[in-house]
Amino acid sequence: MTQKAFQDFYTDDFSQCYGCGRLNEHGLQIKSYWDGDESVARILPSEHHIAVPGFVYGGLIASLVDCHSTGTAAAAAYKAEGREMDTDPPLRFVTASLKVDYLAPTPLGVELEIRGRVIEVKEKKVVVEAKVLANGKTCATGNVVAVKMPETMLSK
Amino acid sequence: MTQKAFQDFYTDDFSQCYGCGRLNEHGLQIKSYWDGDESVARILPSEHHIAVPGFVYGGLIASLVDCHSTGTAAAAAYKAEGREMDTDPPLRFVTASLKVDYLAPTPLGVELEIRGRVIEVKEKKVVVEAKVLANGKTCATGNVVAVKMPETMLSK
Repeated sequence: MTQKAFQDFYTDDFSQCYGCGRLNEHGLQIKSYWDGDESVARILPSEHHIAVPGFVYGGLIASLVDCHSTGTAAAAAYKAEGREMDTDPPLRFVTASLKVDYLAPTPLGVELEIRGRVIEVKEKKVVVEAKVLANGKTCATGNVVAVKMPETMLSK
Repeated sequence: MTQKAFQDFYTDDFSQCYGCGRLNEHGLQIKSYWDGDESVARILPSEHHIAVPGFVYGGLIASLVDCHSTGTAAAAAYKAEGREMDTDPPLRFVTASLKVDYLAPTPLGVELEIRGRVIEVKEKKVVVEAKVLANGKTCATGNVVAVKMPETMLSK
């Protein structure tokens, strides 16, 4: 893709995240993009992100849903304001609530696709629905309520 | 503690999990124990399990809730049958649904305590409520619906 990922617009301080920080060398470095009205991210889980032999760890799936959805929330908030993601003031979202339903065991060793759909955009809150697919099959669905990052997290 | 952790009863095949497998050297190796009617696990997150500077990654918190709760589900199922965890047949649970509410930013650099409470035990389904505390303060709450591991995951 020629688009720049949502997460690549974050400043260095907000690029440490284990899930999506481009500066976290131990992390997942999730990259999310618009694909029409939906957002999409693709990732091949590491061998050690295992649950039982042959299947992906559920906590990893929750992490993918989480970071892809907060990134989508930020991108949607900029879009709602008619602004590009590299303009000020920055809009950063954190997760208030995360729900994941595991519909089928997720095979390890194949690229996963995480798709997000923006359900609601308010000034301080964005709701995103997500699904995680392997080989085109939906293995998990997620719902994330993302809220504007609180001052207590920004002040560090 | 002198008790053996729930996860240390798992056979080698079920000890690969990134969250709680004693054989996954890259993983979190969560250890859960009974503490009266509740279950408890304690862990000091790594520096790289960061969200933004000073705070723990939400996906890690979801992972802690997930593995501690499925471990608690297995332990509760054995207890309901009046059996020890090293007796046959083995009882293993996976997550059908995971919900985490993030109540406050979780500080990085302190040991976290995850506490589980068994809400419901049926033959094929156990519901666990969890909370994650830092310095004695509840930072997140969780609800996990755990179900007996499907044959498709056992057959690998």
